[in-house]
Amino acid sequence: MKRGDIQYDLTAEVEIVRVRNLEKNKETDRVVLETPLTIFLNDHEFITLLCSPDNLDCLAVGFLRSEGLIERAADIEKIDVDVEKGFVYLKTAAKDDLINKLYGKRMITSGCGKGSLFFNALDSLQSKRIESPLQVKAEEILKLVGAVQDKALLFKSTGGVHSAALAERDQILFYSEDIGRHNAVDKIVGECILKDISLEDKILLTSGRISSEIVIKGAKLGLPLIVSRSAPTSLAVELARETGITLVGFARGKRLNIYSHSVRIA
Amino acid sequence: MKRGDIQYDLTAEVEIVRVRNLEKNKETDRVVLETPLTIFLNDHEFITLLCSPDNLDCLAVGFLRSEGLIERAADIEKIDVDVEKGFVYLKTAAKDDLINKLYGKRMITSGCGKGSLFFNALDSLQSKRIESPLQVKAEEILKLVGAVQDKALLFKSTGGVHSAALAERDQILFYSEDIGRHNAVDKIVGECILKDISLEDKILLTSGRISSEIVIKGAKLGLPLIVSRSAPTSLAVELARETGITLVGFARGKRLNIYSHSVRIA
Repeated sequence: MKRGDIQYDLTAEVEIVRVRNLEKNKETDRVVLETPLTIFLNDHEFITLLCSPDNLDCLAVGFLRSEGLIERAADIEKIDVDVEKGFVYLKTAAKDDLINKLYGKRMITSGCGKGSLFFNALDSLQSKRIESPLQVKAEEILKLVGAVQDKALLFKSTGGVHSAALAERDQILFYSEDIGRHNAVDKIVGECILKDISLEDKILLTSGRISSEIVIKGAKLGLPLIVSRSAPTSLAVELARETGITLVGFARGKRLNIYSHSVRIA
Repeated sequence: MKRGDIQYDLTAEVEIVRVRNLEKNKETDRVVLETPLTIFLNDHEFITLLCSPDNLDCLAVGFLRSEGLIERAADIEKIDVDVEKGFVYLKTAAKDDLINKLYGKRMITSGCGKGSLFFNALDSLQSKRIESPLQVKAEEILKLVGAVQDKALLFKSTGGVHSAALAERDQILFYSEDIGRHNAVDKIVGECILKDISLEDKILLTSGRISSEIVIKGAKLGLPLIVSRSAPTSLAVELARETGITLVGFARGKRLNIYSHSVRIA
């Protein structure tokens, strides 16, 4: 399940009936794979995500980081991936502490993580304020957005995924695609943690809409700049202004909108 | 918070810096509102969703129906909405039964509903098989898709939402927009339940990608036909074939793809 093997790993052929100008034809089409990933945390089943099945270790680590259950590579004692089953087994250093957090979470999140993610964040954001001196030119941002689009092979072949990338002002460091907007970002976050790379001077690019949850994710990671080709929500803009994140939306062709902390864009 | 008051209710004006052809200008832009909705179920806080703040009662009812906690209007004893706070208070007829389900759920869903929704569904789907005799012409589907696009005012003004609609072969019955793909569908589902309208002979149209969760939602509701302008995933196609749902994707202009049970499309 390495990156790049997209045609083989992340899509499936299906027989379809294609209607064009009211003519029906049986054809073969390519759809994006969707498979469950179950994360076992210190021998407890923690959660099942539905995802594009590559880089499962990155996705698991990134998801746990986004949920606040691990901070850095040193928090991970052992990680095993069973690609066939779609299982990731992760053991953490600080067990009891973690299990408590885990059960704490369970009491809050009945039905969907949004609730907990949202409220945990509102507390934790008070303590965070992003002060990164990062400076980027609008041209550089638009170049990065173009480079991400060039990499979006899975999207081009299926139309069914979102992409995310971590970049410096002049180059893309990591790139991922996933059926889930959040998964694509979490895969990037996980890769950074596993490779012990700080996000505090980096740029996050996403193909998806920017909701409050993406900004909260960025704030927890200390990301100074989030860029999307799509629209942000009102709450995403508010939170970006509060936390010190520069939020850029509708970055396409020769234009972009800066919704917060425009001082970082030269 | 009625439908139609879109400009006033569901968007906010923000000051932005717009960059066009490398020229920076301060301008006013309109972004889509995102607000938390907290559902209280029989006096217990059940979940907080992030949503577009209209039709909160429909969203709450639709979400609870999709999660399998209510079935029909008769299951709802009382529903109160506090628009200012973003709270919906819902009392159900069968309390103990419900609370048990609720705690049952809590044990499964740590972090995100996907897990539970997915696995609950795989069990329950065995018992379900959609046999609706619905017959629709490809032209009728493409007309409905066009009609939904004409209604997508919030998308046109902000680019930040998904739309969903419930239709008969010749007309749209209900329409909703929301920052969340699932919320938009749940608002429609909730409206049907509150108005005691069966979904078993209806068509669900969505602007979003079709993942397994949307198909599972449809299967639980007995929906015979799901139509999207976007791509389905492999698991969505599999589940549609298993459950007897006709799945149509990439419905745009004069073309569409039929991924399962094409017999319903004349």
